[in-house]
Amino acid sequence: MLSLKHLAISSFNENVVYLHRDCETYKVDEVGTVTKVEVHGGAAPVFAFLEIVDDDSLVSPDELGANNETFARLNLPEGANVSLNIAPLPASVAFIRRKMMGNILSEGEYKSIVNDISNHRYSNMDIASFLIASGSFMSAPETLALTGALVGEKVFHWDNENMVVDHHCLGGVPGNKTDIIITAIVAAYGLPILKTAARSITSCAGVADVFAVLANVNLDENKIGRILTESRGVIADYNRLPLVGACKLMSSIERLIGISQQQHIISEILAIKLAAGVTHLVLDIPVGETSRIKSTAEAVQVRKLAEYVGDMLGLEVDAVITDGSEPIGNGVGAMLEARDVMKVLRNRDDAPKDLLEKSLFLAGRILEFDPKLRGGQGYHVAKEILNSGRALEALNHIIYAQGKAEPSRLGQLTREIISRASGVVRAIDNQRINHIGIMAGASQYSGAGLDLLKKVGDSVDVGEPLYVIHSTNSGDFALANSMVEADNGYTIN
Amino acid sequence: MLSLKHLAISSFNENVVYLHRDCETYKVDEVGTVTKVEVHGGAAPVFAFLEIVDDDSLVSPDELGANNETFARLNLPEGANVSLNIAPLPASVAFIRRKMMGNILSEGEYKSIVNDISNHRYSNMDIASFLIASGSFMSAPETLALTGALVGEKVFHWDNENMVVDHHCLGGVPGNKTDIIITAIVAAYGLPILKTAARSITSCAGVADVFAVLANVNLDENKIGRILTESRGVIADYNRLPLVGACKLMSSIERLIGISQQQHIISEILAIKLAAGVTHLVLDIPVGETSRIKSTAEAVQVRKLAEYVGDMLGLEVDAVITDGSEPIGNGVGAMLEARDVMKVLRNRDDAPKDLLEKSLFLAGRILEFDPKLRGGQGYHVAKEILNSGRALEALNHIIYAQGKAEPSRLGQLTREIISRASGVVRAIDNQRINHIGIMAGASQYSGAGLDLLKKVGDSVDVGEPLYVIHSTNSGDFALANSMVEADNGYTIN
Repeated sequence: MLSLKHLAISSFNENVVYLHRDCETYKVDEVGTVTKVEVHGGAAPVFAFLEIVDDDSLVSPDELGANNETFARLNLPEGANVSLNIAPLPASVAFIRRKMMGNILSEGEYKSIVNDISNHRYSNMDIASFLIASGSFMSAPETLALTGALVGEKVFHWDNENMVVDHHCLGGVPGNKTDIIITAIVAAYGLPILKTAARSITSCAGVADVFAVLANVNLDENKIGRILTESRGVIADYNRLPLVGACKLMSSIERLIGISQQQHIISEILAIKLAAGVTHLVLDIPVGETSRIKSTAEAVQVRKLAEYVGDMLGLEVDAVITDGSEPIGNGVGAMLEARDVMKVLRNRDDAPKDLLEKSLFLAGRILEFDPKLRGGQGYHVAKEILNSGRALEALNHIIYAQGKAEPSRLGQLTREIISRASGVVRAIDNQRINHIGIMAGASQYSGAGLDLLKKVGDSVDVGEPLYVIHSTNSGDFALANSMVEADNGYTIN
Repeated sequence: MLSLKHLAISSFNENVVYLHRDCETYKVDEVGTVTKVEVHGGAAPVFAFLEIVDDDSLVSPDELGANNETFARLNLPEGANVSLNIAPLPASVAFIRRKMMGNILSEGEYKSIVNDISNHRYSNMDIASFLIASGSFMSAPETLALTGALVGEKVFHWDNENMVVDHHCLGGVPGNKTDIIITAIVAAYGLPILKTAARSITSCAGVADVFAVLANVNLDENKIGRILTESRGVIADYNRLPLVGACKLMSSIERLIGISQQQHIISEILAIKLAAGVTHLVLDIPVGETSRIKSTAEAVQVRKLAEYVGDMLGLEVDAVITDGSEPIGNGVGAMLEARDVMKVLRNRDDAPKDLLEKSLFLAGRILEFDPKLRGGQGYHVAKEILNSGRALEALNHIIYAQGKAEPSRLGQLTREIISRASGVVRAIDNQRINHIGIMAGASQYSGAGLDLLKKVGDSVDVGEPLYVIHSTNSGDFALANSMVEADNGYTIN
């Protein structure tokens, strides 16, 4: 038996325990390599990675150190007696192997995998294995099974509402933050919209990052219900909600391994919406050579898959294929994107036209979920709401209700990226711009990002700036600058 | 800039750095989820996982803690200035994605992946992703490319020898430790045999674990050369050799995720042999319903693949398909297997006959690599060497030269597993026996394992013991016992 000690280390979901090298009970020199253990002593055994310590001030030979995650999951006081054994592989690992070899997995097998993920029986490595094994091919019924499993036990119910709408974009297009504008318009119209927003996964900024510049996005179920009733719109960081635990783990691993597949993304998006109690969803699928979805054919597959899964699980999905050939708006990164959003809502002359038009189009599609609205009127109603200032007013209500954010500061390390040619901007590479933005620190710091001064079709002279890099620290700034040297993402001729 | 602090934590190859939550330079609350960072300050940037600390006694807000791995790889003194940025994804991750989608990768792409693994630019998760992505299918030229890449820069050369032989078993059969007997016979004959042995990967005990019960297996290049010259045989733990870094990482991840594929295993085995300077290899491919290789057809594929890769890379491979239908010998687990090995070498009457015969057969195949030996004489010569006691003498020389091991102690927690039926043992499930042995602690503790008292074909009465479980700690013992309740691995009728 070892005595439990809490080490205040947070390892982002992964359970870690620390054993002294001179421990008498468990001989460390016989522990050859990375080891997963089961820690006993609490209500249920907790799986954890074993790390070895040579410093008595961290843990002594008769103690077992537990990081924050393990300590919380053990739910035992410091000094409690705990014991270890080598963890057996989760039974569902056999299904990962079967999937790797090209088999179709059953609904039960997906449930079992997701259940093991939710219950922290999978290490991050196991989650990565599942994502890659199922990444090459999943049938539509498999995607349905995964989605159903991901919804999980805990689901929000909004009994006062006939419908709760939402909008989600499949991503791949920098700056594409129509969501906040859409939420403002739809809420102003009076249709309850619950935007469950993500932090950046593979992009410079998620909707939750952008709205966090303006308001608190860390809300609980009660608060969401109240704001939905009173302000008709909510933008909440779904990572902070006690929903879809396995989804969140999968997303964070997708981000880390840099590989995410359509079927997983569809499953994750629809599971979040279903768990959040959303009934009607407009799904934006941007298509472009350098977007996530490269061709209309691919977009149609995604659309049909989302429709099929939505239909089977009781979520009305209106999937819309849009132009994803270049970034939307000018800002890329949370603060710069929030600036664009506010320009649109304030009807400013310098508001990005593409962001404005796309938001109106998508908001119109959502409004048409309302049976009372005459067909084909969505866009015009949305435009009228925006122009009248009612959308801005609705967003201010939402911001006030969620809690206004502290002002943040734009990255003070800046550099103008200068055109080396004269001509017309023929293309802007979404992926390159996204990478440069991430290198500049945008996925970590709200004040970092890129401010695009030229878009496709614009004329440009030699020496004119194409965009401005903003960073908050010199390491990120140097990296972004060195990336730009190799390829700044613009094609001019 | 942060000040570097060494935290004496060993995370088994993974780099980890620890940042205080109140760090001023890097705002932790903006670091949303698991994050890979690049640490700058040393000769080259070091990739590491970021963990967050809330305890000033571990790291203060202006310090960056580094675990043993990161600290060694940074090669900087404590107090050195270091900085961070979010790590870019290794470029070769794009090839993993391509492989996941079913593409054939080029030699250059495998080189690039292996190079990133060797240089610790891959996290364990990335390595798992590569293993799974390439696990479903690899063409023979891909396996060749991977093998070539895994051999790496550093290779041993044994200029005094015309040939250096080795034997390797593909695994899947508990207790199958012919290697030590073969080494003794071949060394006694005078052919230099360098057995590069592994610690357990998916089995109860690797050859290195078993021989470690008898002798030191942690040898360096000079010592191996000297022992090879003087004693004609060496059994070295390849994990301790400065060879095939990427191989070792891949093996340890295969063990953790519980998934290992033929092509990877062939690549890893052949790469180790090539890097160790082995010129001639007998590859044992045991076939059995519950072995790693299930059918002769599969075994023939493996054989041809090993021959092809060996031929292309200059390693003479004699691949032998053997009977893998049940465990070999009686002991399963390092100490119990070492006991069986010594019984055979001592020509004891109670030596397991199957282990004896298989060892002679395979040793004979190796001896026939000697051009001076008349064809077909290998087995008889091997038998004569064993019977005469010269093999035991040779092994004692090797043990003395490598350094005799401290005596170890068999697990004192024991239980006889009793037959519930009378009849004849029809089958013993290799995988089940392996799992029960691992649960009993065999892959971690040399004294843990199973002692099989009955083999296929033996008669058994109700109440007679089938095997004995040995454990060194009560957690493992309880787990093994509970596994036995569900299925003890024996079929009797």
